Amino acid sequence: MGELTQSVTELIDEFAKLPGIGKKSAERLAYHVLRVHDSEAFALAEAIRKVKQNVRYCRNCYNLAEEEECAICRSGGRQQDLLCVVEQPRDLMALEQAGTYRGLYHVLLGRIAPLEGITADQLTIDALVERVRGGRFREVVMATNPTVEGDGTALHISNLLADMPIRITRLARGITTGSVLEFANKEILADALAGRQEF
Amino acid sequence: MGELTQSVTELIDEFAKLPGIGKKSAERLAYHVLRVHDSEAFALAEAIRKVKQNVRYCRNCYNLAEEEECAICRSGGRQQDLLCVVEQPRDLMALEQAGTYRGLYHVLLGRIAPLEGITADQLTIDALVERVRGGRFREVVMATNPTVEGDGTALHISNLLADMPIRITRLARGITTGSVLEFANKEILADALAGRQEF
Repeated sequence: MGELTQSVTELIDEFAKLPGIGKKSAERLAYHVLRVHDSEAFALAEAIRKVKQNVRYCRNCYNLAEEEECAICRSGGRQQDLLCVVEQPRDLMALEQAGTYRGLYHVLLGRIAPLEGITADQLTIDALVERVRGGRFREVVMATNPTVEGDGTALHISNLLADMPIRITRLARGITTGSVLEFANKEILADALAGRQEF
Repeated sequence: MGELTQSVTELIDEFAKLPGIGKKSAERLAYHVLRVHDSEAFALAEAIRKVKQNVRYCRNCYNLAEEEECAICRSGGRQQDLLCVVEQPRDLMALEQAGTYRGLYHVLLGRIAPLEGITADQLTIDALVERVRGGRFREVVMATNPTVEGDGTALHISNLLADMPIRITRLARGITTGSVLEFANKEILADALAGRQEF
């Protein structure tokens, strides 16, 4: 095809590699880049470079960081004896946006998924056990995703921590605020009944 | 908020400036960039830079080009006396993908849109008139979009070309192949009746 220049074709191909971006969307994004001022297009290119160059994992908790330690580990205002275990940095961000948790985190950078060949030693579980063994924590809250794999990962970790003098908890399960009972499936209702609380 | 690093926040902001990309999608794209290998992320950044540095408009037809002339103008295989007028390079690409047009093009780089303050002199209409006055073309096909503004732009141009010894045509309007009559609106059906052809 002679109608597209090589640079435009390459840009469309690169955009199309992004998750959720199909061929048509990639074309639309490429036309946008063609249309905007150089400064705006270069700002996106530069932001991509900066993220890859500057962002690393916190040496304590494996949250995203631009220094040795992440902003949460460096903050003086967090409860130092409470640890929340999540799968990914985005889970940590979701919890932070909820705004009620004030302890520290540990990011596993995945979950145990045998079908995908992801085993415990590819995650940050060793570092987690080491941190907890250090004796600072009174309670570890499992906040892996409520999926078969997330639950399995939490169970594996809780077994590793079982002999330590700490409380191990997990996020409550039940009906979600704003939902309707009619559409809750039986697992959700079973969780809600099993975890029922004093009124 | 201490949970996102500055580079990540900036990248999310840049992605969110793209058309059709909301805040949540921008976050997903940023996490993707964080996750992939440096080489993959840098390939996207580099593709953006290259497009802005290499791509310009063809000096004849204003199609996208990486040299003085676009691939279509440079090609020896196109019919030299037939000119098709489109609004944008992407319209040209759509026609090329249809694969039946073998003439040359002229890209207006927009359409006359008084409500948005876009007037005829901001488009490449002067260059078009100059090209046609050169006397090479036997026929000019108006292929602006079938909208009020596209039709208005085509009418404006056909008035400018009216005194030249050429045929001025426009794309056929009618029912679209694969559609159902039941759902065609009255403008479509009126066009289809007015343009009816021998069976």
